[in-house]
Amino acid sequence: MVPHRVPRWPSWLFRASPGWAQTACALRAWVPQGRWPGSSRGAGAASPLARRGCSSMPSQPPEVMLTQERYPVRRLPFSTVSEQDLAAFERIVPGRVTTDPGELEAHNVDWLRTVRGCSKVLLRPRTSEEVSRVLRHCHERNLAVNPQGGNTGMVGGSVPVFDEIILSTALMNQVISFDDVSGTLVCQAGCVLEQLSRHVEERGFVMPLDLGAKGSCHIGGNVATNAGGLRFLRYGSLHGTVLGLEVVLADGTVLNCLTSLRKDNTGYDLKQLFIGSEGTLGVITAVSILCPPKPKAVSVAFLGCPSFAEVLRTFCTCKGMLGEILSAFEFMDAECMQLVGRHLHLARPVQESPFYVLIETSGSHAGHDAEKLGSFLEHALGSGLVTDGTLATDQRRVKMLWALRERITEALSLDGYVYKYDLSLPVERLYDLVTSLRARLGPRAKHVVGYGHLGDGNLHLNVTAEAFSEPLLAALEPHVYEWTAAQRGSVSAEHGVGFKKRDALGYSKPPTALRLMCQLKALLDPKGILNPYKTLPTRA
Amino acid sequence: MVPHRVPRWPSWLFRASPGWAQTACALRAWVPQGRWPGSSRGAGAASPLARRGCSSMPSQPPEVMLTQERYPVRRLPFSTVSEQDLAAFERIVPGRVTTDPGELEAHNVDWLRTVRGCSKVLLRPRTSEEVSRVLRHCHERNLAVNPQGGNTGMVGGSVPVFDEIILSTALMNQVISFDDVSGTLVCQAGCVLEQLSRHVEERGFVMPLDLGAKGSCHIGGNVATNAGGLRFLRYGSLHGTVLGLEVVLADGTVLNCLTSLRKDNTGYDLKQLFIGSEGTLGVITAVSILCPPKPKAVSVAFLGCPSFAEVLRTFCTCKGMLGEILSAFEFMDAECMQLVGRHLHLARPVQESPFYVLIETSGSHAGHDAEKLGSFLEHALGSGLVTDGTLATDQRRVKMLWALRERITEALSLDGYVYKYDLSLPVERLYDLVTSLRARLGPRAKHVVGYGHLGDGNLHLNVTAEAFSEPLLAALEPHVYEWTAAQRGSVSAEHGVGFKKRDALGYSKPPTALRLMCQLKALLDPKGILNPYKTLPTRA
Repeated sequence: MVPHRVPRWPSWLFRASPGWAQTACALRAWVPQGRWPGSSRGAGAASPLARRGCSSMPSQPPEVMLTQERYPVRRLPFSTVSEQDLAAFERIVPGRVTTDPGELEAHNVDWLRTVRGCSKVLLRPRTSEEVSRVLRHCHERNLAVNPQGGNTGMVGGSVPVFDEIILSTALMNQVISFDDVSGTLVCQAGCVLEQLSRHVEERGFVMPLDLGAKGSCHIGGNVATNAGGLRFLRYGSLHGTVLGLEVVLADGTVLNCLTSLRKDNTGYDLKQLFIGSEGTLGVITAVSILCPPKPKAVSVAFLGCPSFAEVLRTFCTCKGMLGEILSAFEFMDAECMQLVGRHLHLARPVQESPFYVLIETSGSHAGHDAEKLGSFLEHALGSGLVTDGTLATDQRRVKMLWALRERITEALSLDGYVYKYDLSLPVERLYDLVTSLRARLGPRAKHVVGYGHLGDGNLHLNVTAEAFSEPLLAALEPHVYEWTAAQRGSVSAEHGVGFKKRDALGYSKPPTALRLMCQLKALLDPKGILNPYKTLPTRA
Repeated sequence: MVPHRVPRWPSWLFRASPGWAQTACALRAWVPQGRWPGSSRGAGAASPLARRGCSSMPSQPPEVMLTQERYPVRRLPFSTVSEQDLAAFERIVPGRVTTDPGELEAHNVDWLRTVRGCSKVLLRPRTSEEVSRVLRHCHERNLAVNPQGGNTGMVGGSVPVFDEIILSTALMNQVISFDDVSGTLVCQAGCVLEQLSRHVEERGFVMPLDLGAKGSCHIGGNVATNAGGLRFLRYGSLHGTVLGLEVVLADGTVLNCLTSLRKDNTGYDLKQLFIGSEGTLGVITAVSILCPPKPKAVSVAFLGCPSFAEVLRTFCTCKGMLGEILSAFEFMDAECMQLVGRHLHLARPVQESPFYVLIETSGSHAGHDAEKLGSFLEHALGSGLVTDGTLATDQRRVKMLWALRERITEALSLDGYVYKYDLSLPVERLYDLVTSLRARLGPRAKHVVGYGHLGDGNLHLNVTAEAFSEPLLAALEPHVYEWTAAQRGSVSAEHGVGFKKRDALGYSKPPTALRLMCQLKALLDPKGILNPYKTLPTRA
């Protein structure tokens, strides 16, 4: 990080906020924990939420209802795991077959604590050869399999619905190679995103994706769910940055598309099939990904805006004035910030405002970047787009400001049961749904909040309540999906489909597309053993 | 274009080259022609090469040998077009059914004049509904179809092999919408790339791809072949920038994935299947693509390097010093420049050197960009990486410098029969193959040249000879492919497979991948009527 001065910046704006000390304190608690220590973890010792970065969960969380009890879903006629199967698994992954219910608990429940399977077996292979042998056995025996990465998904895609065998990538955590001319990283699927970030940053590069769950999520899971996250605006989709994949198909066949080339037009780009297929078409075992050079300077501005119209105008101005150095444009509403304050004790670094935006710049020349950012901020302030702001250029303060945005999900989880919607919408209409939903739900909801990646047209709409309630769900769905479909939006921008959004697919995809999805599933996984009850529509 | 000064730049370096006047003259001849005037064109009046931008072809080019005579390929048992079929087509696309052999000639021969089909019918639909009706008919009747865009491909993928019906997108040339907040362009597949560029540039954006054939190539063809081109380094692959597609499947089903959303994780990303599938899985009828903002300043430096080692060092230095404003890094060897001079009368703008590089910067602040580029050039010159150079910042001179690189393909075509290889290789080994091939071929080749997108690890290796010769081909293949495979490279970086590279696929893809390609083809086009004899391996 190169220290630099912002020229012509009104000094009163960048005050030492009284909230900083408190934020710094909270930050320490937030430093993500190391990689999931599979063998030593009990159910209570490290909840999935704690792994994701939150350490303030109650130690005895309430029991999560079984998915098969809460939702109308019936077990498909897969075989059940026999003693012979366990013995076969023990031969394939010796010492890495877990049947202890306590150990299995954290793998059966999603981190949001909204769905729960009842798997009785967890397997932890170390190599793609082991994954291949496991799947070959399961395919022959008609045993269903739930591939699992860091279990940080939002749509119930990463835990079993019934008794599927959990195939964890946690021990497939080796970096295979890094080319420091091209920036190509090749690694096993179970590498934790944050550890990969560290690995490539030490070599002058950054990962092309970043997300709140980085301390726990696996790169294989990121690719399998086509994770978007905080760097999407700058580096684009994984469909562009993933160069190659190794995938084990349902019958155990290893499909090696693990090329490290930027360009390869030798026939169909098969890896694309698996990006975003949520483990239903194959198990990703290794990833080759292009890492951009590490920016020499990163700055974050956290600003208060008087209305959503000003948020939009700030975005347009910012795109024009910051150009190629703009690397993130996030927004959140006042209620988000109140929840972050209440549940995580993070203080607002600026005056209270109806909306806040976080703008990040990343560039190769600190002086030039500061000048661009300075001009933009001066303009934004002078023209009333922004009423207050604070700027960070050193890594510690940059992280603190990012924490305010990244930890909203966590704050919401601590507020009660969360109904989560992750929508792509035309940017001009992005906030209308939040406003109309507040009016529609009235006191039935504790909070209705909107935040997200404005630069990508991606709204995270969240509704909290004391507990799960059917009537509240009925007030939300299909209303939210119908509203989104009317805007030709997407009912799942980046979170995916998983178990929870299957019946919403039709709002964003025509019947022809749903049919083709089912045909692809039938081609690649004819017995349907891979992550069943997920991603595909219940009826196509 | 904002005029600006390069600070601290040695004035002697940027001399008014005596070649400029000549280049300017040649540039006038080169201005790409308008959209293919389908109805008024005879075989001699506008050769595919003239459409691509070359006006210096002889008016009576030698006859091109029929593909079925030159290559060992047998017609598959498709039906032949009957009078009843023609009547049916006339009902679907009235007045747009062509059977005149003269008019068909340009559609039967590829622009490189290396392959030739003998189709007797050309259809020019205007809507996806018409494409759907045509395909439904062909599917029922088991008639083979060759989808054709601008016919500017390099691998014989865009012309029939036998008597396939040519389905041209030439009249599907309407822009459907452009969103000037998000930069999303939605258009029909037959829009010519250069016209789209003009359309979006008038609105403050640029197309995320650019290539030499822009004056003729269709956006649908670009997507179907996953075209790379000159902006790949900056804006990445079409797998990342294409937001949505409308595709007509082999049986006439319209698959509408024409979303304009940056993020959409509602199930499998089906459009990805068709990007790069060369019309073998479906016919792309409309495209939604994300256009980045138009840079406020573009500069091009054309430099001479004493050896390939210095080309590589220049690349690394340039990446570090230009960072996010680097938008292209192209290289060419001395023989390329000689051919461009000899056949197109374009003059070298710098002293003769063993290698030349073209560096483009695109940014949002002319002053900052000039300062970065100036520092880089000063360093490159001072440290001996570069021995001579010229810089252009106004649009006319920028185009002139680009012409030296973009028109190499054309110069090669005028040199004789061209054996073309388009390889992805580790950047350090990129030029070794050119050197070793010169020694291997000796006087059997007229020229062995290497140029390409160094920034993407993409070498265009071209060998010219007076005419096609089996012994020369035998000296080249499989040697070039084996060499590439030994480096774990790709035997087709961006040109695709088409008809010519089918048997080379196995050098870059394992048998499992080839098998899956065939399975996908069988799923989507069970009768194999779409672009037969292309893309898929002859034996899987």
